[in-house]
Amino acid sequence: MKMLINAPETVVADALAGLAAAHPGLRVDAERRIVLRAEPGRAGKPALVSGGGSGHEPLHAGFVGFGMLDAACPGEVFTSPVPDQMLAAAQAVDTGGGVLFLVKNYTGDVLNFQLAADLLEDEGITARTVLIDDDVAVEDSLYTAGRRGTGATLFAEKHAGAAAERGASLDEAAAVAELTNAACRSFGIALGPGTTPSAGRPGFELGDGEIELGVGIHGEPGRRRAAYAPANELAEIAVEAVCADLDFSGDAMVLLNGMGASPLLELYIVYAEVVRALERRGVRVVRNLVGDYITSLNMPGFSVTVCRAEPELMDLWDAPVQTPALRWGR
Amino acid sequence: MKMLINAPETVVADALAGLAAAHPGLRVDAERRIVLRAEPGRAGKPALVSGGGSGHEPLHAGFVGFGMLDAACPGEVFTSPVPDQMLAAAQAVDTGGGVLFLVKNYTGDVLNFQLAADLLEDEGITARTVLIDDDVAVEDSLYTAGRRGTGATLFAEKHAGAAAERGASLDEAAAVAELTNAACRSFGIALGPGTTPSAGRPGFELGDGEIELGVGIHGEPGRRRAAYAPANELAEIAVEAVCADLDFSGDAMVLLNGMGASPLLELYIVYAEVVRALERRGVRVVRNLVGDYITSLNMPGFSVTVCRAEPELMDLWDAPVQTPALRWGR
Repeated sequence: MKMLINAPETVVADALAGLAAAHPGLRVDAERRIVLRAEPGRAGKPALVSGGGSGHEPLHAGFVGFGMLDAACPGEVFTSPVPDQMLAAAQAVDTGGGVLFLVKNYTGDVLNFQLAADLLEDEGITARTVLIDDDVAVEDSLYTAGRRGTGATLFAEKHAGAAAERGASLDEAAAVAELTNAACRSFGIALGPGTTPSAGRPGFELGDGEIELGVGIHGEPGRRRAAYAPANELAEIAVEAVCADLDFSGDAMVLLNGMGASPLLELYIVYAEVVRALERRGVRVVRNLVGDYITSLNMPGFSVTVCRAEPELMDLWDAPVQTPALRWGR
Repeated sequence: MKMLINAPETVVADALAGLAAAHPGLRVDAERRIVLRAEPGRAGKPALVSGGGSGHEPLHAGFVGFGMLDAACPGEVFTSPVPDQMLAAAQAVDTGGGVLFLVKNYTGDVLNFQLAADLLEDEGITARTVLIDDDVAVEDSLYTAGRRGTGATLFAEKHAGAAAERGASLDEAAAVAELTNAACRSFGIALGPGTTPSAGRPGFELGDGEIELGVGIHGEPGRRRAAYAPANELAEIAVEAVCADLDFSGDAMVLLNGMGASPLLELYIVYAEVVRALERRGVRVVRNLVGDYITSLNMPGFSVTVCRAEPELMDLWDAPVQTPALRWGR
């Protein structure tokens, strides 16, 4: 499989070099593989740190900056970062307010962030951890006990980041992330597999007329294989799955996320259908993002994340943010 | 080929519905297929109008907004919009300062925009047209006499848009677009084809180990087929092609553009190599964009556009912009 890489072994290091070259607002410690704000956060602000396997760009490094994360720890592709990375990131960005780890619920990430939190406490720095587990597709999956974490991560990083900039304490920022996770549900559909650089071949196989309903961001199996259907039917399936799990009637924020290889033209088509499917259920979309935000390498497909637009959350959503992938209001 | 569409015939109309739903700053006249700023430009400001075939999103509709375009006319996929669309767009956004058409050099677009300019003059509205032809790959191609227009379009829309907001006359804004086009060169490389919704199959074929050097944004043939090579070699080929055509020594702005299906992870890898290849030639990158900006549906690959960072152009680049796809400084 042809890819724009130098060698499978150097993919993450090479991409971090490009990330650092592209964004003067970021600083990359190539040795320890941590991505930091070039300008540290305000003294006493709780520091937000996230991370996970690479291959989901712009998540997480693309969300480092004012109003969102203080640091990100990218692991190898689809592989958890290690506790040392997380510890180094946390130590680098703590300014006395403690550290909030935002962790997508995958077993490797959860264990490693737990270890990092313990190590950090040994260093005398207070750590809090919030697990993100918004994907309604399945309980337990290839890499996960319980529900997987996906699109809610973006909302949690945005909301908790805004709260932290505004002066929230560590506990308050953690509470915002928890509230956000509880207010979000997601569901993804793949039209085909992504290809990992190390394997050099598709992560799974789908027939010509087949799709995967409830796919995970590493290509994990979802609820079932189904026959390919037009965008309006796929949007209905995703929205039904999400709304069956939580009552969203009222105002909502929506992330229509591309998995990597579906053109923006197609994502807008799905978005229009998602809005209609939500309206049929009494849900009015008041904020949205359409594009590739939490990808799965070059997987064609999409996921929908719906977040209840509680006034506090919407206010935090609207707050200024300056990161490579999200930027507004300042 | 599986796609996120309702039906091949309604792709553009359905995507425009999604675009309008997603961006309150845009207004879409679905009947005539024009995308406008929801808030009209200042009275007397020259109005910037662009357009072309769909399938290159976010170009052009994603660049409508303060500091950039006043309107975009999306044609069918890979098909020029029609003169009536362009005329309607121009009439809708003219506020007395005349209309600047920014036209990528493809024969259909050129003819149709020329017709629209004539019709507009008949209505008593002054029209100026600037052709963009920055792609060094080939003279004459499948749809083009002379060089094709590609990444310079983004710079021309940004620079002329900023000049117009600052009070430039129609002639002055046109001169900025011409200066920008003259200061830009581009070169693209495809690892594979894109798939048009109407055909439902890849637009061309490439062997497992083959790539297309100098590919056009509709999958037009480039200079030659070559064997697949790592990112550093591909970056060197693209940069050499661009720098052989124009002396860029000194400061430059760079667009590292994804063609649609190459993950952001890979684009950052290529970007790092492009910076190095430019540095070897005495070119220092002072501004950059890395991501999918002028796509070719789901084509895997990239293009590099280099723009000489003349002080006037860099100042216009840094000016505030508020569009769906470019946003900073306001």
